[in-house]
Amino acid sequence: MSNIFGHNFRIMTFGESHGPGLGVVVDGLPAGLKLSLADIQKDLDRRRPGRSIFSSPRQEPDQAEILSGLTRDSRTNGAPLAMLIRNQDQDRRPTDNDHKFRPGHADWVYYQKYGLKPQPGGGRSSGRETVARVAAGAVARAILSPLGIKAEAYTVAVGGIRAENIDPEFAELDPLRFADRHLAREAHQEVEAAMSEGDSVGSVVEVSLTGVPAGWGEPVFDKINASLGLAFFSIGAVRAVEFGEGLALAGLRGSAANDPLGPEGPLSNRHGGVMGGLSTGLPIIARLYIRPTPSISKEQRSVTVGGQPTTIESHGRHDPCLAPRLAPVAEAMALICLADFHLGPSSHYIAINQSVAD
Amino acid sequence: MSNIFGHNFRIMTFGESHGPGLGVVVDGLPAGLKLSLADIQKDLDRRRPGRSIFSSPRQEPDQAEILSGLTRDSRTNGAPLAMLIRNQDQDRRPTDNDHKFRPGHADWVYYQKYGLKPQPGGGRSSGRETVARVAAGAVARAILSPLGIKAEAYTVAVGGIRAENIDPEFAELDPLRFADRHLAREAHQEVEAAMSEGDSVGSVVEVSLTGVPAGWGEPVFDKINASLGLAFFSIGAVRAVEFGEGLALAGLRGSAANDPLGPEGPLSNRHGGVMGGLSTGLPIIARLYIRPTPSISKEQRSVTVGGQPTTIESHGRHDPCLAPRLAPVAEAMALICLADFHLGPSSHYIAINQSVAD
Amino acid sequence: MSNIFGHNFRIMTFGESHGPGLGVVVDGLPAGLKLSLADIQKDLDRRRPGRSIFSSPRQEPDQAEILSGLTRDSRTNGAPLAMLIRNQDQDRRPTDNDHKFRPGHADWVYYQKYGLKPQPGGGRSSGRETVARVAAGAVARAILSPLGIKAEAYTVAVGGIRAENIDPEFAELDPLRFADRHLAREAHQEVEAAMSEGDSVGSVVEVSLTGVPAGWGEPVFDKINASLGLAFFSIGAVRAVEFGEGLALAGLRGSAANDPLGPEGPLSNRHGGVMGGLSTGLPIIARLYIRPTPSISKEQRSVTVGGQPTTIESHGRHDPCLAPRLAPVAEAMALICLADFHLGPSSHYIAINQSVAD
Amino acid sequence: MSNIFGHNFRIMTFGESHGPGLGVVVDGLPAGLKLSLADIQKDLDRRRPGRSIFSSPRQEPDQAEILSGLTRDSRTNGAPLAMLIRNQDQDRRPTDNDHKFRPGHADWVYYQKYGLKPQPGGGRSSGRETVARVAAGAVARAILSPLGIKAEAYTVAVGGIRAENIDPEFAELDPLRFADRHLAREAHQEVEAAMSEGDSVGSVVEVSLTGVPAGWGEPVFDKINASLGLAFFSIGAVRAVEFGEGLALAGLRGSAANDPLGPEGPLSNRHGGVMGGLSTGLPIIARLYIRPTPSISKEQRSVTVGGQPTTIESHGRHDPCLAPRLAPVAEAMALICLADFHLGPSSHYIAINQSVAD
Repeated sequence: MSNIFGHNFRIMTFGESHGPGLGVVVDGLPAGLKLSLADIQKDLDRRRPGRSIFSSPRQEPDQAEILSGLTRDSRTNGAPLAMLIRNQDQDRRPTDNDHKFRPGHADWVYYQKYGLKPQPGGGRSSGRETVARVAAGAVARAILSPLGIKAEAYTVAVGGIRAENIDPEFAELDPLRFADRHLAREAHQEVEAAMSEGDSVGSVVEVSLTGVPAGWGEPVFDKINASLGLAFFSIGAVRAVEFGEGLALAGLRGSAANDPLGPEGPLSNRHGGVMGGLSTGLPIIARLYIRPTPSISKEQRSVTVGGQPTTIESHGRHDPCLAPRLAPVAEAMALICLADFHLGPSSHYIAINQSVAD
Repeated sequence: MSNIFGHNFRIMTFGESHGPGLGVVVDGLPAGLKLSLADIQKDLDRRRPGRSIFSSPRQEPDQAEILSGLTRDSRTNGAPLAMLIRNQDQDRRPTDNDHKFRPGHADWVYYQKYGLKPQPGGGRSSGRETVARVAAGAVARAILSPLGIKAEAYTVAVGGIRAENIDPEFAELDPLRFADRHLAREAHQEVEAAMSEGDSVGSVVEVSLTGVPAGWGEPVFDKINASLGLAFFSIGAVRAVEFGEGLALAGLRGSAANDPLGPEGPLSNRHGGVMGGLSTGLPIIARLYIRPTPSISKEQRSVTVGGQPTTIESHGRHDPCLAPRLAPVAEAMALICLADFHLGPSSHYIAINQSVAD
Repeated sequence: MSNIFGHNFRIMTFGESHGPGLGVVVDGLPAGLKLSLADIQKDLDRRRPGRSIFSSPRQEPDQAEILSGLTRDSRTNGAPLAMLIRNQDQDRRPTDNDHKFRPGHADWVYYQKYGLKPQPGGGRSSGRETVARVAAGAVARAILSPLGIKAEAYTVAVGGIRAENIDPEFAELDPLRFADRHLAREAHQEVEAAMSEGDSVGSVVEVSLTGVPAGWGEPVFDKINASLGLAFFSIGAVRAVEFGEGLALAGLRGSAANDPLGPEGPLSNRHGGVMGGLSTGLPIIARLYIRPTPSISKEQRSVTVGGQPTTIESHGRHDPCLAPRLAPVAEAMALICLADFHLGPSSHYIAINQSVAD
Repeated sequence: MSNIFGHNFRIMTFGESHGPGLGVVVDGLPAGLKLSLADIQKDLDRRRPGRSIFSSPRQEPDQAEILSGLTRDSRTNGAPLAMLIRNQDQDRRPTDNDHKFRPGHADWVYYQKYGLKPQPGGGRSSGRETVARVAAGAVARAILSPLGIKAEAYTVAVGGIRAENIDPEFAELDPLRFADRHLAREAHQEVEAAMSEGDSVGSVVEVSLTGVPAGWGEPVFDKINASLGLAFFSIGAVRAVEFGEGLALAGLRGSAANDPLGPEGPLSNRHGGVMGGLSTGLPIIARLYIRPTPSISKEQRSVTVGGQPTTIESHGRHDPCLAPRLAPVAEAMALICLADFHLGPSSHYIAINQSVAD
């Protein structure tokens, strides 16, 4: 629980926004896996701040140091792989807001739970915490890629602008990761308009997982969509999660909602790649509905740590729309979740059963 | 994993639709808790089939036998509480569909995973599996009720009919558990229309959790909404989960989405009772989007176990709309999840910290 | 935790000595495994009371009912296997000792922990709890036997009589499971002498696990001997556990203690089949040191539940020496532990690495 | 599993003997706990090599860096506490033994499991791995000390020399941690004699845990002695574990082995502080039987990585007797285990039950 995720591919993360650094230990790795620091850095760079006008100007190289788990020829050795990303650009100047709780943030509930005053930069509740997840996700990707399993996340809605023609390759280049080439400019304008008013914008990220064979997942509590649901809702700011044509299905009749079956499996993919909690072999499609960034420079009602009503304006370093930097985190959590099923005993079931069936 | 749910209040369920029975073992119970069979039966009755025209006609008394865990004066003794619900009304007559996979069901993926032909009635993938969850949920309710924590689930949409004025008390009496007294008749007609055509209808269930103190949940991976997300997505047919005004928030600006803070906490509840993964003290509101029942008597394209294309019509005993019987299961899973946090070490954090703060 | 054992082959046990019955749910089973009730009954019979003068006269058929997890042709279906053994011969007559704590028993500490008066027959702390472990162990045996893995436990010491020539086949027939044909009569006399004085006798059980391939176990915390240590110490009355020539090694020099290595592995087995926490391929040999049965008819100093000093004589139904009925429990726990490693991700490590090495 | 230990006070360790460093992440800490680097350093120093003639001459400052989990005023903040100890004095010179497996070491079984050649210094199987455990143990000590719970480990036998009058304070000063002031010189001579012949010596460490209240532990699988058994056997070189007068009890009659009960609990402590798997309130006494150091400079039979018979002499940096440096590790594992029970839900049982009993 708590700061551990996964059963077989297990990660434990640590670190605070303004402390010495953030890190993750990955346990359960098979030995012999080729893994380079460059693989990890590539994913870290995709999440890194300061790379566009739509991203916090905090300058962090986000350079990982591998502390353990590799042989001298860069293969996993079966022992835990620990990675450390040191913080560089902590903004430690005192501000007027240091003794105020920020609406929409974890400050106030943390104070209820731990009795501690808000830490600078949000401490453990900062989005910066997710850098450790992305590092672990890169390791999961290195396990799954050779199996043909691929995770892609991209922005499909920004405020009122919804992507119509999904193009993940375009999204990879767009500063908002917006997936529709023709509507990208409108999406940018939506965010710029909010920024100019000191405001932020909500968004939707779609995650596409392809190449997952049929039968992954556990049928009852650890359904593959339930495990992915846990993974996605563990990312701050995600307020709804949908699989396949989930929301629409709730308004349809069975005859319109069912995917007919053919000899190779489902003939359509309204179910989003999951049936009865198990993968069907078709792409697993999930959509994450993301609230607007809570920190805005507009004035909001708040309270001080001492309990006095006040107002607050946040002029710090914030992303005006969370989707572009959250997408790599969503990919990472999905990959971690899939690697956990892959390395788990569930695959044994298939193997043992098939040898029995012969 | 798999058939175990929870860390502190832990349940392990077992049983198949057409086997001897279904059951659950609840571990982690404090000793001394007053618990009667009647408490459990009350919840089981709310999920029981055969109670309205909108429910499968299968006749099951769903009478639980308590096998362990109680003292002679009906208190928990600190040992695991095991409950068994024997099946009575298994329909074991062979049908034309026995060698066909049912679209929308788990049959085909189970076959991919386990290499076994579909079991009659769906075996472990049957909705009947959830009777064990409801029994365990009743135990969780007995733990949480004295703390003022209450879970209610009710139908807020059936096909195109959406409840406008939520009235949980009315829902408790309605055969669809539809929460709007004035629109209930329309909702009934929506289902009847589908039934008359051999079809089924999608739906939405809302879960309201009141009385949860601020600060429950774990901040990173085991956020309270993430844990509830796992719990809700583990219920078959749930295709999307939303907290608070989740879907709408994704289309708003920050200034419209944030809940302002007052001395007692958030002044509004757009966030649905969860902030930074921790409870805020306001009602936790979740919405579960449920696909239509996959078994319909309309003809659908399918395949035989041998891989030959065929068509299938399901004339068995099915609920035309899953919401009314799924709602008690959603309550149960939410209660189990909350009891797990309540009995967990997280409450210690508060206690130890407060003594330190003095 | 608590009433759950294992990570991959997971069991959850329940039940009390004088309640409706005892049971176990086994989760994590591969599908397709042939398993008959007779396999399970055979192991249950080996632990059953009332079969010799050295065993409690309680008459329990210990007949297991399988509640779930099997197909109609007696193969596992990938779902949890639940087994229930109903109690038959509970002795519920009130005795003079009902309000006294029994020295050497769990009564007094249970009362400290749970605030409950001792339950008749010891409730959950009764040795009868182990019947569920033996049922689960039989399932583990069915998984491991086809791999050539075998567990045998037998008595190697009773009071002052120590076996010299170990013969497990003879032990299987001896009422004390004493492993030395030539000293068995002396061992019987040792127990009879104690019985005639209303006393009991300590003992040592040896567990031999053969056929375990090299490399099982996890190198750091879940060493195979550590996991077996947990398993063995979880059996009441076990007060010391030794692997290989463990006790003697502590008094030797390295040159006398090391097992030299040959091309096929260690050339001798002083290490008892475990090196660096991993199996070496040689037999894993453990010895369990067992205290005498605490219930004796001799007078002992005790206290009442009310805290008054008193004396106590236990004239109930007890085994005068625990070894013969504890040995099948030790086998069961060892098999459960090995099945847990077998079904776990650790075997993946080997597989993946080897494919990489090609 | 694997590199994670504990359920509530959870640690995850990482690092190799000759890699960048070793570390541990501690999760599950209550917020508000005062904790200084000096507390941790004190325990690390007790395990540090190079401090006597009886210890490896490797020079490691073993200075911990705290990477996360503390507030600016050195209190825990409820987030994971990560600690890193960088390696300094790796001996990386190639030796004649680099392609030979060392008898008694984990090299050969690691090779069977992972397919990797032995890493210099033993990699993850090196005793150096335990530095991370000691760091975590210091945190556990900081939690338990204010409750009056104390762990002490000391050497009670070296080769043939057994301590008679136990004096833990003397042991703390003795280079062998030998607990008998009058026999310490003999113990030293025993080790010196072995050293002069290029040999090593076995030993016994006793662990004394005082101040643990009655009722800690879980009655069935997670008995307090079973959990401690797991903890102790997870330390390399421990080949037998005994609680109380464990070995001797196996040879006694019940009337001589039972501890009589008085109003405050057991009147004697033959049971070593554990009854029915729960603490009795009396000191928990365990004895760890430790094999001699396997690395000796005497010639031994071995094989090369290529499978050729050879001989090996280890002239590296080794402790001639493991007890003095293993004792702090045994304390650490015991403290981690106790902190895990303390922070776990088990203490809730008592609390809830007692309020019910009123």
